[in-house]
Amino acid sequence: MSKKVGICLIGSGRAGMIHANNFNTKVPNAEMVAVCDPVEEAAKKACEQLGISTYYLDYKEALKDDNVDAVVVASPTKYHKEIVVAAANAGKDILCEKPMAMNVEECDVMIKEAKYNNVKLQIAFMRRFDEGFMQAKEIIDSGEIGEVVLVKSLTRGPSIPKPWMYDISKSNGPLAEVNSHDIDAMRWLAGSEFKTIYGIADNYRAPQVKEQYPDYYDNVIMAIQFENGVQGLMDGATSVRYGYDARAEVLGTEGCIFIGGTNANNTVTCSLNNGKKRKVMNSWMNLFKDAYTAEDVSFIDCIINDQEPKVTGHDGKMAVKIVEAGMQSIKTKKVIDLNKM
Amino acid sequence: MSKKVGICLIGSGRAGMIHANNFNTKVPNAEMVAVCDPVEEAAKKACEQLGISTYYLDYKEALKDDNVDAVVVASPTKYHKEIVVAAANAGKDILCEKPMAMNVEECDVMIKEAKYNNVKLQIAFMRRFDEGFMQAKEIIDSGEIGEVVLVKSLTRGPSIPKPWMYDISKSNGPLAEVNSHDIDAMRWLAGSEFKTIYGIADNYRAPQVKEQYPDYYDNVIMAIQFENGVQGLMDGATSVRYGYDARAEVLGTEGCIFIGGTNANNTVTCSLNNGKKRKVMNSWMNLFKDAYTAEDVSFIDCIINDQEPKVTGHDGKMAVKIVEAGMQSIKTKKVIDLNKM
Amino acid sequence: MSKKVGICLIGSGRAGMIHANNFNTKVPNAEMVAVCDPVEEAAKKACEQLGISTYYLDYKEALKDDNVDAVVVASPTKYHKEIVVAAANAGKDILCEKPMAMNVEECDVMIKEAKYNNVKLQIAFMRRFDEGFMQAKEIIDSGEIGEVVLVKSLTRGPSIPKPWMYDISKSNGPLAEVNSHDIDAMRWLAGSEFKTIYGIADNYRAPQVKEQYPDYYDNVIMAIQFENGVQGLMDGATSVRYGYDARAEVLGTEGCIFIGGTNANNTVTCSLNNGKKRKVMNSWMNLFKDAYTAEDVSFIDCIINDQEPKVTGHDGKMAVKIVEAGMQSIKTKKVIDLNKM
Amino acid sequence: MSKKVGICLIGSGRAGMIHANNFNTKVPNAEMVAVCDPVEEAAKKACEQLGISTYYLDYKEALKDDNVDAVVVASPTKYHKEIVVAAANAGKDILCEKPMAMNVEECDVMIKEAKYNNVKLQIAFMRRFDEGFMQAKEIIDSGEIGEVVLVKSLTRGPSIPKPWMYDISKSNGPLAEVNSHDIDAMRWLAGSEFKTIYGIADNYRAPQVKEQYPDYYDNVIMAIQFENGVQGLMDGATSVRYGYDARAEVLGTEGCIFIGGTNANNTVTCSLNNGKKRKVMNSWMNLFKDAYTAEDVSFIDCIINDQEPKVTGHDGKMAVKIVEAGMQSIKTKKVIDLNKM
Repeated sequence: MSKKVGICLIGSGRAGMIHANNFNTKVPNAEMVAVCDPVEEAAKKACEQLGISTYYLDYKEALKDDNVDAVVVASPTKYHKEIVVAAANAGKDILCEKPMAMNVEECDVMIKEAKYNNVKLQIAFMRRFDEGFMQAKEIIDSGEIGEVVLVKSLTRGPSIPKPWMYDISKSNGPLAEVNSHDIDAMRWLAGSEFKTIYGIADNYRAPQVKEQYPDYYDNVIMAIQFENGVQGLMDGATSVRYGYDARAEVLGTEGCIFIGGTNANNTVTCSLNNGKKRKVMNSWMNLFKDAYTAEDVSFIDCIINDQEPKVTGHDGKMAVKIVEAGMQSIKTKKVIDLNKM
Repeated sequence: MSKKVGICLIGSGRAGMIHANNFNTKVPNAEMVAVCDPVEEAAKKACEQLGISTYYLDYKEALKDDNVDAVVVASPTKYHKEIVVAAANAGKDILCEKPMAMNVEECDVMIKEAKYNNVKLQIAFMRRFDEGFMQAKEIIDSGEIGEVVLVKSLTRGPSIPKPWMYDISKSNGPLAEVNSHDIDAMRWLAGSEFKTIYGIADNYRAPQVKEQYPDYYDNVIMAIQFENGVQGLMDGATSVRYGYDARAEVLGTEGCIFIGGTNANNTVTCSLNNGKKRKVMNSWMNLFKDAYTAEDVSFIDCIINDQEPKVTGHDGKMAVKIVEAGMQSIKTKKVIDLNKM
Repeated sequence: MSKKVGICLIGSGRAGMIHANNFNTKVPNAEMVAVCDPVEEAAKKACEQLGISTYYLDYKEALKDDNVDAVVVASPTKYHKEIVVAAANAGKDILCEKPMAMNVEECDVMIKEAKYNNVKLQIAFMRRFDEGFMQAKEIIDSGEIGEVVLVKSLTRGPSIPKPWMYDISKSNGPLAEVNSHDIDAMRWLAGSEFKTIYGIADNYRAPQVKEQYPDYYDNVIMAIQFENGVQGLMDGATSVRYGYDARAEVLGTEGCIFIGGTNANNTVTCSLNNGKKRKVMNSWMNLFKDAYTAEDVSFIDCIINDQEPKVTGHDGKMAVKIVEAGMQSIKTKKVIDLNKM
Repeated sequence: MSKKVGICLIGSGRAGMIHANNFNTKVPNAEMVAVCDPVEEAAKKACEQLGISTYYLDYKEALKDDNVDAVVVASPTKYHKEIVVAAANAGKDILCEKPMAMNVEECDVMIKEAKYNNVKLQIAFMRRFDEGFMQAKEIIDSGEIGEVVLVKSLTRGPSIPKPWMYDISKSNGPLAEVNSHDIDAMRWLAGSEFKTIYGIADNYRAPQVKEQYPDYYDNVIMAIQFENGVQGLMDGATSVRYGYDARAEVLGTEGCIFIGGTNANNTVTCSLNNGKKRKVMNSWMNLFKDAYTAEDVSFIDCIINDQEPKVTGHDGKMAVKIVEAGMQSIKTKKVIDLNKM
């Protein structure tokens, strides 16, 4: 066999470790060669889990490692631009977690540097690799539901925000943390860019932080018009208490597609008093497990076959831009035209 | 408008009153004209519910009433033969509840007398009028699932047996009381008669009556071979505690049909701890509400248009015969060949 | 039995006849006594279907009929106010189809006249009587899903607009014709009034009328804020080609409720090439059949027991007001504050 | 990290390669070290897929390899006994595919030898490691559905039999090839051994082999009584054309559990003419993908922690015995008492 693509994980948090485990065990032609995390203990623990020994505390050192062919950037968002630019300059291919960056300007720099250095830059919107979403996209493209009229998408997660996330000026809240995936999926399914956006957001589940963080919100809704005339509705939530819920719906002139569901598995119990129970999906880690693997496989395939990634820097940038527009709408309580930002 | 078909209900129990209410309010060209019940209080109460005034304590008197064009026989099974024969002789059309009679010989007499007197004799297997069952039958007939290979059917009800039902020599137990409907539906869906039957039955939910009624059973399973080679599996239960459950499945050489389900409606609640809940169908009275109406409409149509009922005396008789064979198999623990009974 | 409530149907179209049939056959203590329709042929045909003989061409004549205790107003919307006011002055109780009237001013007059004449005025939002919606409301009220955060509701129907409906200045389009039900259900489930509304609408399925009726739309989305802070998302469509689809969702701080679904029944066919098929609900007439009956039963109960109808003139008026606000938002492409209209 | 358990795959067919890929990539503390297949090309191809280089044509040679700590026996069933005995004598732990062996006598020898040599012998009934089946078992054990009354299980697969399988004297047909899993799951869920069994089987889908193989069957049903009084119903099929279908149901005195389903994923399309479509699960390889991994993880855990496997040689033997009894019932058309075989 030919040499495998050597991967270094930068940022050993939850999403990062999913990728690392995939590259370590499920992705042909890839192997984890190093982990980079400024917290030595975290880096060591990740190495132990992955059965490897090389770790770095400084990503600049990691980028000097010749065994590293590609990096997974899963650090806090505010470091994405700096790391991606450095990785591109070091000639490393890049899989970058979402949100791509703090703002559109950063995205532009990242895209430009990746292009200049001729490295792959893939943004980690794994729904594009989910079997159900891909099937829906195929059905749309086949014309079976006619012309797309309306795309709906929602994500509601059980995660309790980390303390820093309550400061919306730093995190952009669920719109960035949760709905980035919906935004990307909606652009993909609608086959068009967002034109106008109107959003409403509020804090329903964390009254205790209202005084300190009056802008914090944990539930958001959006009404969207796409450039091609398609309509969009989106909602997002964090701290929901019934499980993990990610569903989408595409209404066409001749039919409708439903994507996703909330069942954890197919086991259903009927018991006393006419009650029927089943488990709810508990986490994106289970719901999108296979999608993460397919995403990582696709990343390696792009490197090996020198192809354009299926989710590009432009896709990452548009999600960032739409989050910005959404936040502006929430603050101003007005409809925002993305062409006039 | 032409004269409506005047109906007399004989036996004002639960199933009887469903028919009576249908004829009273939902069936065009029919009207309830009398109720007959040996218990005067019951007869009076039924009249009050139906908004009519004529009642009889003796069915023989009811049959003399010229306003009565047809009767619904919903008395205890042991009186079915006597009443049906008398009604036939009086020239009344007959809708007879299941089980048709106590044994095959009684059925033969009933069929003969109805034929001789040229009156309609319809047996109340309402599943044949259920939208879902009818759709399945159409799909089978269309050839969409190829040749039928296996028919499965089950009915599980919440009813606690009335005291007399514990004596299997009188009631034949759930096989007659509950599974008569499955037997009829299976014959219909398989398009063939039962050839051999093997059954197992036991008492799981009423340990308190085991000593007095050692033969009582509340759960029964059956493996069947049809004359045309189709296979069959059936199960039945009474006193189940989770709701009312009637489902069927038809496996063909090229596909499979699923009929029925246990949801009470479409409302689903996801709540804390990843639990998803919905209500279970609680009663055949809800599940087959529309089927009862369609059955009663069809009965009147047959009378008005002088057509053969969709469920005949022969159908009623075969269900009785199969229950007999099933009981024999349960007792002897052997496979019973219906052609050798 | 005491005298039944005599009903006259005014306007013998599709919805009107559903009510008439219910009062004729399914509602205790009610009876159809007359039909009123300016088209004599329609009036006669309705009488024939109902098995009654009295019809009027002019509603003013019908209101003089002493056998008429109550009226069902199912005429075109533009006549609602005139008829309801006359009926109130004639002392008749009123079940009025939606939309209640052409504008809020008309609604105010209708409410005032009904109150002054001490007659019942119930608006026909039958979802409030649907088993699934009622169960959801109970669950919300029980606190099981915590505080309500977001209410979503959609209705998509297969109806092709009648010619006059293309003129939005006359019909208000699907927002009035279809989504009136969603608006009412959302107010009910949210437990609050609409505060702001933002809508987008366009014509996707009738390109042939774009030139003549540039304002016509067949698909609409809405983002809503309620007075109590609850968020709302709504979508509506007409001329959809996959069936009839009415679903709602209530997200709370501790859970979520899903209402409704698109299955016609429980029969599912698996056939060649891994395809699984089932029928889609085809019409509101099937989906809400039992809700219509319960609504009509409730109307009679209110009359007999002299109670406030469960859906009042105020409810009808609010739906009209929200449609007005929605239309204004669609036209101005701005967020509309209902308190500033 | 400590040394990994070195695995040699014996028999590089479809099921074998699933295990090999799991040990290669998804199971911590295990690594594939060799493949053994008498067909050199197959052995080489398997090595290539696994990224390893050692292969053997003779299992006896493989058992001499010190890097091999454990073997996966996935050869044709008729070689299972010989290989397992040799592996046990060589001190290798054993994961043996189902059916365990050709007959009960062979199973006894295998169990004895594994015990004598103190090696693990796990039989590959992966449903015991499936999330849904495990959840059902937990619910049963919790008492939530009361006492178990009836266990139903079915497996229908799309596989067209390989030519040798038409000879039932060699393959035992779907009862062994397909229903072994149901048999094991039913014993596990019922918490008891089979006492009596009655089966019917026939050839519905391969008329072309009827003359040459009159005993061949592709559809089988079974009615079962367990030692503890629980009832059982089973059905099995091969060559079904609608997908892969494995479902079970456990009826208790106080409730019911449904396990499994036929949906490939959650994407549903509603299109013209009220049709709703979704994909059917196409293969056990997808349905039980995670169960296979969990099974392999459990095997390694048992080795490392020196524990009894969760599915023992006794479990494998009982499935073989029940297949024998089932075949005897099919041939004799009689109920078979397993205690009298």
